[in-house]
Amino acid sequence: MTVSVKNTAIKKITGSGIESKPDLLAVEEPLEIRIGFGSLSDRQQKSLSVTMRTPGHDFELAVGFLFTEGIINHFNQVESIKYCEDGGKQEQKENSVRVELKPEVQIDFTKLQRHFYTTSSCGVCGKTSIDAVKVSCSVQPDLFKIQSSIIHTLPQHLRVAQNVFEYTGGLHASALFDAQGNLTLLREDVGRHNALDKIIGAILFRQDTLFSNCILVVSGRASFELVQKAAVAGIPVLAAVGAPSSLAVQLAKEVNMTLLGFVRDQRFNIYCGENRVTA
Amino acid sequence: MTVSVKNTAIKKITGSGIESKPDLLAVEEPLEIRIGFGSLSDRQQKSLSVTMRTPGHDFELAVGFLFTEGIINHFNQVESIKYCEDGGKQEQKENSVRVELKPEVQIDFTKLQRHFYTTSSCGVCGKTSIDAVKVSCSVQPDLFKIQSSIIHTLPQHLRVAQNVFEYTGGLHASALFDAQGNLTLLREDVGRHNALDKIIGAILFRQDTLFSNCILVVSGRASFELVQKAAVAGIPVLAAVGAPSSLAVQLAKEVNMTLLGFVRDQRFNIYCGENRVTA
Repeated sequence: MTVSVKNTAIKKITGSGIESKPDLLAVEEPLEIRIGFGSLSDRQQKSLSVTMRTPGHDFELAVGFLFTEGIINHFNQVESIKYCEDGGKQEQKENSVRVELKPEVQIDFTKLQRHFYTTSSCGVCGKTSIDAVKVSCSVQPDLFKIQSSIIHTLPQHLRVAQNVFEYTGGLHASALFDAQGNLTLLREDVGRHNALDKIIGAILFRQDTLFSNCILVVSGRASFELVQKAAVAGIPVLAAVGAPSSLAVQLAKEVNMTLLGFVRDQRFNIYCGENRVTA
Repeated sequence: MTVSVKNTAIKKITGSGIESKPDLLAVEEPLEIRIGFGSLSDRQQKSLSVTMRTPGHDFELAVGFLFTEGIINHFNQVESIKYCEDGGKQEQKENSVRVELKPEVQIDFTKLQRHFYTTSSCGVCGKTSIDAVKVSCSVQPDLFKIQSSIIHTLPQHLRVAQNVFEYTGGLHASALFDAQGNLTLLREDVGRHNALDKIIGAILFRQDTLFSNCILVVSGRASFELVQKAAVAGIPVLAAVGAPSSLAVQLAKEVNMTLLGFVRDQRFNIYCGENRVTA
């Protein structure tokens, strides 16, 4: 049973005094992502990551993570997915996911080392970070267009659809909308990168090709990491309710993504890719 | 020359039309943290992390990171700190910091593996995450007290002091205040954990013992990771402008920290440790 919110007892302090009351918290629990890989005669297992996430849609999170981090590049490389059996209690089992890859899948573990791709003498800077992810990106040409009047409506749609946020005030959200402003998919998580990996994993599960035909809306700021994951998925437009960082803008420009920021209160900023936004 | 904001050109879309204008972005750049360690006759180097951060206070960030991740437990274990020489351009050099540890420092690299501490059959869950960090925590008994009327004033003080946020709307902040509500130290960063590591590193640089006598205010939500870093530093009270997660509350309880959330608009919630908050 997946639990996304948890009861707690709090003291609420306001101008009028102290009140003891029950409250709900967004659940944060570790998820370990393991893969099984290699030929049938020489099968191996490797633990790739432990991420702090909100339980729910764990298989989508695991597959999305493998895809946006460049370990797999198509859903058909996945043989099966399950919770690991070797944990002790049920609660622990559901915090460890094993993705079985097909025997023929060749894995380049150096891609996982993107936080360490710098140890050579070439130095480390924004440019090298961008170059390291650019090779895996696949944002399409400018076929997708969206009207600014529709963009104005998206944050409100996102907010209304955010179930857990409503109860806890404590979750990031990522959502995909079509060009008409219809919500296709929404995921929430304590980690913003997890919410996005869950979205991308969900689309991969559907074997859909939706990515090139949608706008991604994120509840917070647009970091380098979010633009990178969206770019690997080929999402043409990313709209953030908050501000983008310098490196997020630089990467979006280099991969021909449209990046919007401060999308709220009937206004937004276009940082690049304005040709996809119509009047 | 440290650059925390960067110029860009944007299109601003409002109800009244489109305007081309200059704008400022919060800078995001990778920082590699390396250590030199081992005896004088067998000196070694290791790259520990590459984090996406806002340039500035990089030495504090590096030392704070080593401390909150359990690699060092006192500033006097540091021999020297410098930017690495082997990068190419100046820009690249300032994205790589090398902390030279004293020869006698024994390093337990398994502590750095906290994202991987789960590969044995014991399973992975919130409890194991907490147990893994609890050993390094040092929150003091309940000597520190703070009035709720002073707590109400802190978010506004934080906001006023946030220079870069003012220009870009795009940064997290961490700040320390004393029991009288005076701002002691503030740091901003695109990464919330970096802002906190910079604060903790700065205090270590001063060889101060301030930690046990202050309240930490963070601009966003309180995650497990933030509570963990604050707990390792022995900070008795953490106040978040946003919501805490379930695991953040659980860890705060276990290490006897006072955790406050939704500290804004003249109200806040106490999740645990209410004995440190006075009327």
